[in-house]
Amino acid sequence: MAKREFLLSPGPVNVPRRVALAGAQEIFHHRSERFQELMSDVDGKLKKLFKTKHFIAYLTSSGTGAMEACVTNLLKKSDEPIVVEGGKFGQRWGELCKAFQIKYHPIQIEWGRAVKSEQIEQALRANPNAKFVFTQLFETSTGTAYDIESIAKICKRYDVLFVVDAISSLGIVPLEMDKWGVDVAITGSQKALMIPPGLAFVALSERALKTIEASDLPKYYWDLKAYKKNFPYTPYTPAVSLLIELNEALTMIEEEGGVDAVMNKCESFARATRAAIEAMNLKLFSERPGAVCTTVQVPAGIAEKDILETLRNEFQIKIEGGQDHLKGKMLRIGHIGDVLLKDALGAISALELTFHKLGHRFELGAGTQAALESLSEMSMSVR
Amino acid sequence: MAKREFLLSPGPVNVPRRVALAGAQEIFHHRSERFQELMSDVDGKLKKLFKTKHFIAYLTSSGTGAMEACVTNLLKKSDEPIVVEGGKFGQRWGELCKAFQIKYHPIQIEWGRAVKSEQIEQALRANPNAKFVFTQLFETSTGTAYDIESIAKICKRYDVLFVVDAISSLGIVPLEMDKWGVDVAITGSQKALMIPPGLAFVALSERALKTIEASDLPKYYWDLKAYKKNFPYTPYTPAVSLLIELNEALTMIEEEGGVDAVMNKCESFARATRAAIEAMNLKLFSERPGAVCTTVQVPAGIAEKDILETLRNEFQIKIEGGQDHLKGKMLRIGHIGDVLLKDALGAISALELTFHKLGHRFELGAGTQAALESLSEMSMSVR
Repeated sequence: MAKREFLLSPGPVNVPRRVALAGAQEIFHHRSERFQELMSDVDGKLKKLFKTKHFIAYLTSSGTGAMEACVTNLLKKSDEPIVVEGGKFGQRWGELCKAFQIKYHPIQIEWGRAVKSEQIEQALRANPNAKFVFTQLFETSTGTAYDIESIAKICKRYDVLFVVDAISSLGIVPLEMDKWGVDVAITGSQKALMIPPGLAFVALSERALKTIEASDLPKYYWDLKAYKKNFPYTPYTPAVSLLIELNEALTMIEEEGGVDAVMNKCESFARATRAAIEAMNLKLFSERPGAVCTTVQVPAGIAEKDILETLRNEFQIKIEGGQDHLKGKMLRIGHIGDVLLKDALGAISALELTFHKLGHRFELGAGTQAALESLSEMSMSVR
Repeated sequence: MAKREFLLSPGPVNVPRRVALAGAQEIFHHRSERFQELMSDVDGKLKKLFKTKHFIAYLTSSGTGAMEACVTNLLKKSDEPIVVEGGKFGQRWGELCKAFQIKYHPIQIEWGRAVKSEQIEQALRANPNAKFVFTQLFETSTGTAYDIESIAKICKRYDVLFVVDAISSLGIVPLEMDKWGVDVAITGSQKALMIPPGLAFVALSERALKTIEASDLPKYYWDLKAYKKNFPYTPYTPAVSLLIELNEALTMIEEEGGVDAVMNKCESFARATRAAIEAMNLKLFSERPGAVCTTVQVPAGIAEKDILETLRNEFQIKIEGGQDHLKGKMLRIGHIGDVLLKDALGAISALELTFHKLGHRFELGAGTQAALESLSEMSMSVR
């Protein structure tokens, strides 16, 4: 029998019991008044997370499905988008372009660094044919938040469509879709939304909706025109039980004071964790961290695997290691989903005991102390 | 507050409470030993439903996603498949071909009729370039089961790949994938598998796996090579809670005597329902019915809408009407999912009261009597 596992991953996250049990209720048909009511309820609340009044498409897929929907619906064969490649998920935009034979212009960013708006401007100047910029809000493979507000200004100035992958970060890292002029934002279900994986969401500005009319790339399941036309129904059978869970989770977010309160909570956990990491004589990985997960360099002489296994076996905590070329070199400690302050603090203490056991040199207790000091500086309401 | 609704639909179906609660357990990570164990468990049991020893890809999507995966992975741009269009779902194969600019040869079948193997042979003779036949096991829009065993023989003789959409019917209508030589079979989660919608499955013979290597159609999320390479993991985050439910539902199917016992049960419900329909002076729609759902012609002078609403409002039973040009002309009464004999009989009695109330002329009680006689002819073990 496998041990219990408390997820401190950048997704999937712990699902609140109340949400999970809502999904276990008797199912109803996806062509019914009840489904219509559900979707109208969900949609009103989800728009507040996206900070948009525009259309949202509800896809039954992982977040990658939403990425594919962006590429195949927005682009024409002749388009040459700018793609920010600052980690595994930036590269995924590129891989999707390749799969659909789209010539794209990558901006290569060293993993752990944040793209600068000047680099976007430079790329747009160098490629005047480019009509799109694809990027992340938070590059989950490096734990780096990008400055979307500044990039949006550049995109507006150059009159290009701005597409933001916020799969792991919507509702965690600030994003003002309408106010900043982001044209397309996407997210997934198993992150801030606190439900199991299986749903993905694409929010589209009026300009983006016009753009998809002109696309000539092949698609069927991802055809966003069909999602627009059929709303509040979906063109193909949706994952109804997950939509019921989504509704419950969105209600919980509202009860907790709304999306900004949740963002503040995650940010306070992340800040306390960063303080603890540095006090434990460890190095942060990202130059511009965000509240989805904190990335930490694995110190010389200690194996990533031993850290992950100690946390899992002795503390029933699941954090994640590095991906691709960072495998073995990085820890990713999540702050999202159904996590309370005591969980975040407990995880910091568990990290201390783990590093102590594995022979890392630091003053035991210093991490927790730094976390508590970080938290004590915040007002109670933010905590 | 919406009324309770007992689903007698060809999908989605009632989910057993035991299955729904399994899905509400604490979630675990999709890159973990526990997930590996889950998939190995699920896969062994699902192969018995497909009656195959071959590879199954696990997609997070509706059944249509699995259809798109078949088209984009099996075909080359130059291919000219034969497509059986005997209803809405046969047409979907055609629409998918169109979306990916594949020239295809439709075999048009009058809705409610079953394609004959001679028609397949004729099409293959007329189009010697055709290397594929796409069809349904059960055309859900007309309630018609096709003779897949005979068609498979023709496909073997002409050495073409045979692709069967069994989305609504796997585990309900007999299909011997390996024995009959079906190359690809697909199904969805919200039918015989008795779980909520959100998962789809593609089983591929060795020949089909070889064929996908040569495909030159664009795909990313649906790229089955990635599913093969990553198994038991999935290339993108899967709907973990639904996979946990699937495992529980497959265990229930085994406890109920396996897939053949479930098929017999559904077939006995369908046969009893057909007997009742005819005894009630109503006409069946399909010339070759199957046990997924029974399709019934709406008699002159009665509105489909009134029948559906009476059943829903007075009996809390949800059956379905016709689709596309059959809207208003057809009832579809499901026999699948978490349905017991008493439910099937209760539904027949409810149908009697509904038609009686709406002024249809028949002897009240005759339907139920015919159903009971049909059931009494079967051995107890089959019931």
